[in-house]
Amino acid sequence: MLENKDTSKTDISQLGEFGLIEHLTKDFKVEQKTTVKGIGDDAAVIESHGQLVVTTDLLVEGVHFDLSYMPLKHLGYKAVMVNLSDVYAMNATPSQITVSIAVSNRFPVEALEELYAGIKTASNIYGVDVVGGDTSSSTSGLLISITAIGQAKKDDLTYRDGAKENDLLVVTGDLGAAYLGLQILEREKQVFKVNPKSQPDLDPYTYLIERQLKPEARKDIVKLLSDLEVKPTSMIDISDGLSSEIIHICNNSKVGCNLYEEKIPLDPQVISTCEEFNMDSTTIALSGGEDYELLFTVRTEDFPKIKANPHLTVIGHMTHEKEGVHLITRANTKIPLVARGWNALENE
Amino acid sequence: MLENKDTSKTDISQLGEFGLIEHLTKDFKVEQKTTVKGIGDDAAVIESHGQLVVTTDLLVEGVHFDLSYMPLKHLGYKAVMVNLSDVYAMNATPSQITVSIAVSNRFPVEALEELYAGIKTASNIYGVDVVGGDTSSSTSGLLISITAIGQAKKDDLTYRDGAKENDLLVVTGDLGAAYLGLQILEREKQVFKVNPKSQPDLDPYTYLIERQLKPEARKDIVKLLSDLEVKPTSMIDISDGLSSEIIHICNNSKVGCNLYEEKIPLDPQVISTCEEFNMDSTTIALSGGEDYELLFTVRTEDFPKIKANPHLTVIGHMTHEKEGVHLITRANTKIPLVARGWNALENE
Repeated sequence: MLENKDTSKTDISQLGEFGLIEHLTKDFKVEQKTTVKGIGDDAAVIESHGQLVVTTDLLVEGVHFDLSYMPLKHLGYKAVMVNLSDVYAMNATPSQITVSIAVSNRFPVEALEELYAGIKTASNIYGVDVVGGDTSSSTSGLLISITAIGQAKKDDLTYRDGAKENDLLVVTGDLGAAYLGLQILEREKQVFKVNPKSQPDLDPYTYLIERQLKPEARKDIVKLLSDLEVKPTSMIDISDGLSSEIIHICNNSKVGCNLYEEKIPLDPQVISTCEEFNMDSTTIALSGGEDYELLFTVRTEDFPKIKANPHLTVIGHMTHEKEGVHLITRANTKIPLVARGWNALENE
Repeated sequence: MLENKDTSKTDISQLGEFGLIEHLTKDFKVEQKTTVKGIGDDAAVIESHGQLVVTTDLLVEGVHFDLSYMPLKHLGYKAVMVNLSDVYAMNATPSQITVSIAVSNRFPVEALEELYAGIKTASNIYGVDVVGGDTSSSTSGLLISITAIGQAKKDDLTYRDGAKENDLLVVTGDLGAAYLGLQILEREKQVFKVNPKSQPDLDPYTYLIERQLKPEARKDIVKLLSDLEVKPTSMIDISDGLSSEIIHICNNSKVGCNLYEEKIPLDPQVISTCEEFNMDSTTIALSGGEDYELLFTVRTEDFPKIKANPHLTVIGHMTHEKEGVHLITRANTKIPLVARGWNALENE
């Protein structure tokens, strides 16, 4: 689909490396007051008087995304979200990103323009400047490497290791939808292979597909926590599934946890699609991944501040390390959580 | 050569993504006082009270390196150098790096250990902490994406756009050796293909090969300039060849330049190897690339401070923009420089 056989498309080699990066980033403007120098020198220059956070993520074609159902514009947007989510998980505000791509010559310049349009949209909405990057040819496929930089006051930063016994475990939004969106897209891809004329009815899955193709990082939560005057004792973003992130917090903070199955927030589309696919919705929420929600712990005295908020759900509480990390099921049985909740449940 | 058929080697999949990055970075210690938090949270945290520089570079197998003659340990070292060189070109001091790799399953864990040993050696020698990164599988080959962060006082930073008419153009070290080193290695690869038992005599080329396989970023120059109390009016590192970098400075600073062929510093091995290969040494110096020397401009009144220094060579001076960018040959003819000096000379 993306082979550059259409002669109306522009071959990357026509621009060369310098020409390509200049072409792709010419509309990117410096808008953050902390950006002293953006693209165009040996390095970008950033003003900071405090603590910066730095995080980096790779997205590799055939591993993290499939261009047969992921539009390049969405891919650009999502690649930025994946990184910003890590910045928000530190309770920091992202301010700059660098974007490097390695790309094979099957991509015409117009395809990369789509990718960068998504990156630009994300940057505008989330208030970050693209301050640097690199482009290279690759022998196969597309790879995107983004580094995000964020700023925070020292006292606002939240780490994975600050949770204490009796703290409440809180999650934003709902879980499992992105994973199910991927299953739907994979199913439609197989159907399309057999019958290219089939017209799928995706109406029952719109939320799931949007969560997979156009996730949003929880910028609003950093502001909300600040407005509520709640500083989480620990925080992490949910990229690999709830159970794996809970275990990260527990291991780093040296605490245990009781997670209550009945409390896990699920969208109605997740519940109905799990029924259709004959999947267990708790398993999907625990192990699905790519939700980019935030998981954090707060002191019990902060409960009144968060309890009425529709974005926040208390799903458990932290215990003594010796008590271990458990899921308390609806039937009130206690199941040990392991990093891959999926296997954990299957093995019980 | 690197196919993982040796059962004594460890397949990457045995460790998994988390296990792999933990395994590769377990010996990396935080040593910089500006590193508040290194590997192990959603993001690294860096203390800064001033201006930071950020730069990123991709190295792609089959594009930037050939593992048939580039040992993985050297590759790790060089990947760090390429990035630090950009930080020094801002007259800043690198303090942290993030390292992301995408790698196919033909690489056993032991190969990646070699790569990371080179990264660790470079980090120790140059005083930077590895504070983050990502690992991913790839469908083919090895890709390394490094982001380097450096710190500087605002007034010390040097950009590409500060050169003024009459400023002197200065280069560190000598030029062209890394490119010739690559030619020697390519030649030996071809010889090896025909006759695997041939024992090459590489003695006449040791400096060239070292410059290609184990370049050093010019950490010493930032200190030297500070000691000499010289602040360059502009600076850039030489990654793509002298002519292309001169043109970057001229375009950004809106000045012209006269570059004197007879002043270009060349190592004796460069001269003798150019004679052997029947190549023009000036062309190699102008277009060879990968020298990772620094090119900068200073005010004429700073000349007494730099003139006796064996690391620094004045190779030209800046002119009015309208005069253009020229090479003044040994025969005293004036040739316009273009970004690829190679073509420039061939076309005359």
